[in-house]
Amino acid sequence: MAGQLFHVIDTQGFDRPLLDELCELTTRLRGIAKTQEGALALQQLLPHARAMLYFPQPSTRTFLSFNNACHVLGIRTSEIRDPATSSEVKGETFDDSLRTFSSYVDVIVMRTPEAGYAARAAALMDRIPRPVPIINAGSGKDQHPTQALLDVYTLERSFSLRGGIDGKVIGMMGDLKRGRTVRSLCSMMRNYRGVRLIFIAPEPFAMEPDIKAQLARHGIPFTETARLAEALPALDALYVTRMQTEWDTAGESRSMDYGQFSIHPGNLRQLKADAIIMHPLPRGPEIDPAVDNDPRAMYWRQERNGMWMRVAILLKIFRLEDRIFSLASEVLPAGPDPP
Amino acid sequence: MAGQLFHVIDTQGFDRPLLDELCELTTRLRGIAKTQEGALALQQLLPHARAMLYFPQPSTRTFLSFNNACHVLGIRTSEIRDPATSSEVKGETFDDSLRTFSSYVDVIVMRTPEAGYAARAAALMDRIPRPVPIINAGSGKDQHPTQALLDVYTLERSFSLRGGIDGKVIGMMGDLKRGRTVRSLCSMMRNYRGVRLIFIAPEPFAMEPDIKAQLARHGIPFTETARLAEALPALDALYVTRMQTEWDTAGESRSMDYGQFSIHPGNLRQLKADAIIMHPLPRGPEIDPAVDNDPRAMYWRQERNGMWMRVAILLKIFRLEDRIFSLASEVLPAGPDPP
Amino acid sequence: MAGQLFHVIDTQGFDRPLLDELCELTTRLRGIAKTQEGALALQQLLPHARAMLYFPQPSTRTFLSFNNACHVLGIRTSEIRDPATSSEVKGETFDDSLRTFSSYVDVIVMRTPEAGYAARAAALMDRIPRPVPIINAGSGKDQHPTQALLDVYTLERSFSLRGGIDGKVIGMMGDLKRGRTVRSLCSMMRNYRGVRLIFIAPEPFAMEPDIKAQLARHGIPFTETARLAEALPALDALYVTRMQTEWDTAGESRSMDYGQFSIHPGNLRQLKADAIIMHPLPRGPEIDPAVDNDPRAMYWRQERNGMWMRVAILLKIFRLEDRIFSLASEVLPAGPDPP
Repeated sequence: MAGQLFHVIDTQGFDRPLLDELCELTTRLRGIAKTQEGALALQQLLPHARAMLYFPQPSTRTFLSFNNACHVLGIRTSEIRDPATSSEVKGETFDDSLRTFSSYVDVIVMRTPEAGYAARAAALMDRIPRPVPIINAGSGKDQHPTQALLDVYTLERSFSLRGGIDGKVIGMMGDLKRGRTVRSLCSMMRNYRGVRLIFIAPEPFAMEPDIKAQLARHGIPFTETARLAEALPALDALYVTRMQTEWDTAGESRSMDYGQFSIHPGNLRQLKADAIIMHPLPRGPEIDPAVDNDPRAMYWRQERNGMWMRVAILLKIFRLEDRIFSLASEVLPAGPDPP
Repeated sequence: MAGQLFHVIDTQGFDRPLLDELCELTTRLRGIAKTQEGALALQQLLPHARAMLYFPQPSTRTFLSFNNACHVLGIRTSEIRDPATSSEVKGETFDDSLRTFSSYVDVIVMRTPEAGYAARAAALMDRIPRPVPIINAGSGKDQHPTQALLDVYTLERSFSLRGGIDGKVIGMMGDLKRGRTVRSLCSMMRNYRGVRLIFIAPEPFAMEPDIKAQLARHGIPFTETARLAEALPALDALYVTRMQTEWDTAGESRSMDYGQFSIHPGNLRQLKADAIIMHPLPRGPEIDPAVDNDPRAMYWRQERNGMWMRVAILLKIFRLEDRIFSLASEVLPAGPDPP
Repeated sequence: MAGQLFHVIDTQGFDRPLLDELCELTTRLRGIAKTQEGALALQQLLPHARAMLYFPQPSTRTFLSFNNACHVLGIRTSEIRDPATSSEVKGETFDDSLRTFSSYVDVIVMRTPEAGYAARAAALMDRIPRPVPIINAGSGKDQHPTQALLDVYTLERSFSLRGGIDGKVIGMMGDLKRGRTVRSLCSMMRNYRGVRLIFIAPEPFAMEPDIKAQLARHGIPFTETARLAEALPALDALYVTRMQTEWDTAGESRSMDYGQFSIHPGNLRQLKADAIIMHPLPRGPEIDPAVDNDPRAMYWRQERNGMWMRVAILLKIFRLEDRIFSLASEVLPAGPDPP
């Protein structure tokens, strides 16, 4: 039995029981939502709840994923996606703005360009008489915990007939230096047994020492290579990432050689038949669209899993997980996943 | 009995049975919504459905019409109205963006400045495992099918005691060359019998040859004139359009002589007592606001019809038309139209 | 028994019975919303209603307050917050835009930079066949009636055990010259007995003669001072306002001496133990954040009251006040206020 969830700020608080519960909740949810009866039951869970989506750093995908996760549960949403329309032009402090949002809603989902702002918002909430939960939907380069959760779910679910994540070999390719999704996913791996990581990147984009030190502390073996072809046959999962060009200061991303670091019909055959390909999206040239039709391409399903995992997180925050487990036993005919 | 509807891309797929069904559905809907009991029944039809309104080409009127059509049925909406806030800044392709939207919602309504993009989105949907319907809310200069549908409805409804559109004389005035609403409405006329069209425009803004050829192929008679006064007495409907200044390359619109091509209290008397005046709005100087109070001015009602026709389209796409016909018989006291 | 409410344009129409009813309604609402059962009952009152939030003058706080007030009642909202995305780029008049909004929704909430536009919209509605109520959420420097209502509620509620607003001494400090909230609140005072006002401001920001003349006409005594320390001990309420820098033409606001005109732990002790501190927010340096934890600091509660007062206004407009009074007797256990 996992504990309670209030703020979701980083990957630190997620232990194995909580991860397992959130994954199970997500699978049940998807099953319930397959029928119209189930979908109606879900959207009647929180019609009286109100969410604020505060996205001064625009992000269409994450915004839509959260907005629709709220809608699945009937939660009404308010949004700020354009910092220019905000009252901050009147010189209000971040703390006062966040406290104002909390006056009107029951949960705040936020994405900021600056690192640490979600943690700061959570600390503020813990000081005021009517705190609401803060969900970090990405703050600066450092943390994007709900992305890590949906990645964990996608791995766990894809390997559901093969023992889950435990014991798997996971390759991560691309801009590992600056990609927060791979960094967060590495942190999550401490919760699983027998995982082996292979970092596939050219030297300028290699995984940073802090993550490697963290893996070493937790006894998680990893290797590094600049040769995709050598790594491919060993992988259970290949997690591909795009170049983080938005952090370029002098066009660094232009040095990436996609001939060496991309997946395409020409090298797909080197991947095991039951391996999977993931990507947090949006993608650049690192995955050829011709790969989309391969049954191992899991990134579109991963994207959709993101919405369902966020529904699960909201349910857990509002302490409705038991309602799902009982709903699931009523309306859920055990069956295969929808596409 | 009309067939199914999935994507709504252009006016091609709309035959007479489907047009008649959509018009009937719209009239029933309006009747149902007149009572609070009926309005509540409508908004309980699709509370578990989610729509994406993708409007990189801003359009307040069409956006509001669709957004509120969704709300009438309880559908939850997400929106992109400012291209700058979109993840396309990260270089995602149009196809990947559209597929992403489809991951989260059940229907996509889109309006783009480029012609053909709605068709392209529909083709993409037809290739992927979890397609959602695409509704074209205007793409480039070429197609705006839901505007044509609401225009057909307004004509049909206005002439409901006089045999509908069949046999009517319809004048179209203004920038016929570049106005997609008149072009689409002309295409729809192939479904009606005995219609005669009169194009009223100065030469530089005359109807294009492709539409005239299409009318000729379908045996629909039309005449062209630059003299409104001569045409007015013959008309059952005068469809006025604004100058499409947004397509000007060298200020062409400035040559329009509103003294010759506008409707105002001074020439209203030339119009038959049971004729109607339509306009897709927004209007410029081509209709004097003093005309608004004339009972023949139908453009505000036409605008409101737009929302109801879009409700009908959504119902048809979600295959709930039978629910409306049975609801209507329960709650609908046959009566006059609301204003 | 108070009368009906349709448009809410200025503070003129609010007499004592209506103010008392709105305050009572607000208190009942807050009580009902405290339980999940009550919150669900509220959001089932108007799920079939649709609101337009037209905010060409951006205002995060007022927008969120109204948007969430709508959501409390289940009302679906459409928004325009960025004038650049509006169809006004096509040259539509204000009147035509407003009439268009009214075609799709049941109520329009609007905030414009120009004075008088809400009144103009209401006058338009009164001329057309299908009018919808207009709620002024701030127009220019002149009127912001719902702010005045929430201020009245906060005063009345804070003094509920001491006879309400009647007989109280209310200080107003800051940019009284250009602050519409203090101007509107002064106007409301004609409805209360025995109130005394103290205006605390440096000479360049003193209250304008028109308001002083109005107070004189209604026999409401007021004094003016530039010395906060002398006024503080007499006050039951201190209403603090920020500098209206947006109306500066030559940096006038820079002359404000916050050493003389601010509240902070150093001068808090001069305030009576049962006095309250209000502020319409956002705040600048005129209230030290260290004051937030003082039990007399009422501004965060005042902000939250704003949402509930707007729920009450919507209920009154939709004539559902009786439903609240009967709901309240069902689900409301009389109890203390939530924070």
